[in-house]
Amino acid sequence: MATVAFIGLGNMGGPMAANLIKAGMTVTVFDLVPAAVEALTAQGALSAKTACGAAASADFVITMLPAGKHVRHLYLGDDDTKGLLDVVSKEAVLIDCSTIDAESAQVVGKHAQAKGIEFMDAPVSGGTAGAAAGTLTFICGGSDKAYQKAQTVLTVMGANIFHAGATGAGQIAKICNNMLLSVLMVGTSESLQLGIDNGLDPKVLSDIMKVSSGGNWTLEKYNPCPDVMENVPSSNDYQGGFMVDLMVKDLGLSQQTSVASNSSTPMGSLARSMYVNHARQGNGRRDFSSIFEQFTPADKK
Amino acid sequence: MATVAFIGLGNMGGPMAANLIKAGMTVTVFDLVPAAVEALTAQGALSAKTACGAAASADFVITMLPAGKHVRHLYLGDDDTKGLLDVVSKEAVLIDCSTIDAESAQVVGKHAQAKGIEFMDAPVSGGTAGAAAGTLTFICGGSDKAYQKAQTVLTVMGANIFHAGATGAGQIAKICNNMLLSVLMVGTSESLQLGIDNGLDPKVLSDIMKVSSGGNWTLEKYNPCPDVMENVPSSNDYQGGFMVDLMVKDLGLSQQTSVASNSSTPMGSLARSMYVNHARQGNGRRDFSSIFEQFTPADKK
Amino acid sequence: MATVAFIGLGNMGGPMAANLIKAGMTVTVFDLVPAAVEALTAQGALSAKTACGAAASADFVITMLPAGKHVRHLYLGDDDTKGLLDVVSKEAVLIDCSTIDAESAQVVGKHAQAKGIEFMDAPVSGGTAGAAAGTLTFICGGSDKAYQKAQTVLTVMGANIFHAGATGAGQIAKICNNMLLSVLMVGTSESLQLGIDNGLDPKVLSDIMKVSSGGNWTLEKYNPCPDVMENVPSSNDYQGGFMVDLMVKDLGLSQQTSVASNSSTPMGSLARSMYVNHARQGNGRRDFSSIFEQFTPADKK
Amino acid sequence: MATVAFIGLGNMGGPMAANLIKAGMTVTVFDLVPAAVEALTAQGALSAKTACGAAASADFVITMLPAGKHVRHLYLGDDDTKGLLDVVSKEAVLIDCSTIDAESAQVVGKHAQAKGIEFMDAPVSGGTAGAAAGTLTFICGGSDKAYQKAQTVLTVMGANIFHAGATGAGQIAKICNNMLLSVLMVGTSESLQLGIDNGLDPKVLSDIMKVSSGGNWTLEKYNPCPDVMENVPSSNDYQGGFMVDLMVKDLGLSQQTSVASNSSTPMGSLARSMYVNHARQGNGRRDFSSIFEQFTPADKK
Repeated sequence: MATVAFIGLGNMGGPMAANLIKAGMTVTVFDLVPAAVEALTAQGALSAKTACGAAASADFVITMLPAGKHVRHLYLGDDDTKGLLDVVSKEAVLIDCSTIDAESAQVVGKHAQAKGIEFMDAPVSGGTAGAAAGTLTFICGGSDKAYQKAQTVLTVMGANIFHAGATGAGQIAKICNNMLLSVLMVGTSESLQLGIDNGLDPKVLSDIMKVSSGGNWTLEKYNPCPDVMENVPSSNDYQGGFMVDLMVKDLGLSQQTSVASNSSTPMGSLARSMYVNHARQGNGRRDFSSIFEQFTPADKK
Repeated sequence: MATVAFIGLGNMGGPMAANLIKAGMTVTVFDLVPAAVEALTAQGALSAKTACGAAASADFVITMLPAGKHVRHLYLGDDDTKGLLDVVSKEAVLIDCSTIDAESAQVVGKHAQAKGIEFMDAPVSGGTAGAAAGTLTFICGGSDKAYQKAQTVLTVMGANIFHAGATGAGQIAKICNNMLLSVLMVGTSESLQLGIDNGLDPKVLSDIMKVSSGGNWTLEKYNPCPDVMENVPSSNDYQGGFMVDLMVKDLGLSQQTSVASNSSTPMGSLARSMYVNHARQGNGRRDFSSIFEQFTPADKK
Repeated sequence: MATVAFIGLGNMGGPMAANLIKAGMTVTVFDLVPAAVEALTAQGALSAKTACGAAASADFVITMLPAGKHVRHLYLGDDDTKGLLDVVSKEAVLIDCSTIDAESAQVVGKHAQAKGIEFMDAPVSGGTAGAAAGTLTFICGGSDKAYQKAQTVLTVMGANIFHAGATGAGQIAKICNNMLLSVLMVGTSESLQLGIDNGLDPKVLSDIMKVSSGGNWTLEKYNPCPDVMENVPSSNDYQGGFMVDLMVKDLGLSQQTSVASNSSTPMGSLARSMYVNHARQGNGRRDFSSIFEQFTPADKK
Repeated sequence: MATVAFIGLGNMGGPMAANLIKAGMTVTVFDLVPAAVEALTAQGALSAKTACGAAASADFVITMLPAGKHVRHLYLGDDDTKGLLDVVSKEAVLIDCSTIDAESAQVVGKHAQAKGIEFMDAPVSGGTAGAAAGTLTFICGGSDKAYQKAQTVLTVMGANIFHAGATGAGQIAKICNNMLLSVLMVGTSESLQLGIDNGLDPKVLSDIMKVSSGGNWTLEKYNPCPDVMENVPSSNDYQGGFMVDLMVKDLGLSQQTSVASNSSTPMGSLARSMYVNHARQGNGRRDFSSIFEQFTPADKK
């Protein structure tokens, strides 16, 4: 059985590591928060005093961190500290599941390549529910070899695994997808409210558009108008789901990427500004489909 | 068998009427263009000297005209001319399949109701190919009774028939859908180009987003990036399909509606401005997925 | 001295008529609200039982009404009612100061021309303060002759009088200006907040941009950020000034015009959607510079 | 008289350094391009073999470089190379006139402060014409002391000198201003074209808006519609002036800043996407007022 080091045991990382343990793998964990480590050791994980200690002898190293600067520092170290790339086995496959800027992934990838180590960026979608159920989506950037080897661990944690291209491509594909998602959500919201303002039943209108050329993921799975679908955040006061603050973060990454490649993203940048305003009005911790309320008259909320 | 009057025999109306003839119905046609009439009489239609003459004794009257002013005039007449509502049987069902402003449909509907005549707006989508194949989508606005009766003729011409609500609701639902479609098309185009600008293969990125939360009709059926899908306009130099000029028309209707109901449609209005600029640059008669080229560097076109 | 008929004595029309009286003109007034009429007769106006009665013998007829449909009906009448054009002297100059759609102005203008009567659209800006002070701006559409003759009354009520072109041009120029104003206001607001978010003093930043290439009317006269300027609505909890609801109305007219001429107005339509959302959140009766609050974090308001 | 080191002698830096020489200062120059150095030594400058050599004994060090990474490297050096901060006198004032990201300016500022050296960011506007004429605008970020001392050299090169705040504030204020400028330019362009599409003379409309609430710098100094003003790029086939590519660069900086501070900039980001599309269509080296052509029908260009 494979030995795995898992570094970063937050809301996502914790249940992902737990699924690897359940599958019988030897998992050594590390996190700066002792309680997060204890929760995993109670389920059978080993622990290490440092991230490098956890990673040193593992077949697979999986990391799940908040931002690019954390990933760079963990993998590359600094003048005083060794990085993961300084300690891991040349046979190991390193998989960063964080959602970060593509440039950071590419920088780490270059350093890994220079040392002959396989590194792959593999950001996930599917949320904490998907992490717990082992049904995450992984969008991978790295060599074919790394992608093939990584199946051993990714298939345990996820249901859909894509190979987007070379290192960094996983991050790019994810932010393209999430930028498009934000556009679908805003566009669907304003279309539904335009129908409502003109006397249409949003359920009837949703049913029509869902099977017409307006059809999209939000109408299918995640209708933003309250009481059109059951078991979605909009029918539960926009609780749960994917937080506005996280969408703002992802849209920030997409705009950084757009600026870096001199690309034009009029819809995506407009969605970002609308989500920032929405967050600033106090909605940061509500589900991202609550953007629908930006279009609703105050007395209808 | 039902008797049908069909008024307006253009690119859409002609093949729609032909399908009714093929189904064995007695169809009396009228159009201002003699050649259009002759094309249908050659297939077995009767003809009449005036629209009112065609409609006077029909069970169903179907109209397919360019704009709201034509529909108003045909149905309501003026000081010198009788309108359809002045001559049809009280038992007839009148179905306007034009894509027009909802207000015109509502005005005609009110006059019809005052005379005890069933009138329904039923704008279509599916293009000339759908008209010929009898696979159009009809989105209907009118009473349950009118909607039920109209099945006799609509099922001959279409594959999907929706009841959006009262008179005018068909127009509203269609412009909501087409506004959303334009947002999907622009948003998908900019997301694909952002990926391309960062080294991704548009086919791989499309495959990933199609089954992820970015999934939408354009990725499924009508990818705007050349050579990603076969048999779509983008792989045929944006020939055929749904013309930019027609999208501009529909987006104009959606903005009229948005202004009339004091609604907010940031994505839809941005799409309209982008399509207008695209048309003004000489692309009016190309397929609407050619908006993708707005995002492409000149040397890549 | 000139004789004037003044029809429509609301917040704007009342003080405008009063200034004509003060200038010694014989003013006959009409309004559907008796109290509005009485307020003017107390200042020396004559009154008439009908609008046509007031207008029949006047040298100048001035109208100030809410929307295009009111203007059309007043000037053109209907099957049962005479319109102003049916009763006025051929020597009279008719001046509509309402802010309405250009098409209505053009329709009235054509009917007037057919009867040999001079008609001019002359929408105003400057608000109730300008109406009281006689310092309004008039933007006129009509013949040179009408424009020259109208100086007699316009100079009494206003300080700046422009001739934009033929009939309807006054309305077009006004909605172009007000659309641009909305863009200046939103663009200035987001620029100031971007500076604030990055540690700049909004007063210092305003002073810099005002004399640089970002200089515009809002920085000069109407800074949207509280406490940067004195005696502007932003420093008085956004009371007074030009209401959000009125900006929404004007932006609706600009979008109707944009659709009718197939024009592209990406910034203007985005501003409209933002103002509609702002109004729907309960800000309709606050000053239009309150759009600044859309960009401000909730805890800073 | 002051001794000055001037590093970076491009289209802007060259004439700026020349003005210091003309004012009688002792100027030592450095540039990687020998011809650029020779052009200045021919005017009386001294030259040095390295940037550090030029700066070592100067009272003022002025730098004018393309991007943040160049500025960081020049001031901070790296493992193998000394930076300016390692060699200059503690009494010197260092002034970076480059337009770069604020973060780079702040990083350099912190290092300078740690060494007790006065550093100021002072990006300029006014173009090559202003550089030659000595009429540039400087927007400065740094301590009061640095700002006061810098007057000695800044007043020789510029006509307007602003103190925006602490280190980095000069860059922030400049990108706020230039973002707003892009919004003024696009908004004015679409407003003028809306008027033209509806029959107005753009010169008349410009004259009206310029003195009304739509008034802004572009109408005053830089009208984007051909043949409205003399001696502006729009009346010279959009030659000269401020290039589209440079506006794209500045708008990229503004979006980076907006993302970093989680700010909402709907108009600014829309302007950026429009300018990117415009550049991608082959207009990168034309004046930025050529965005007007995006709104013009193809047959009118």
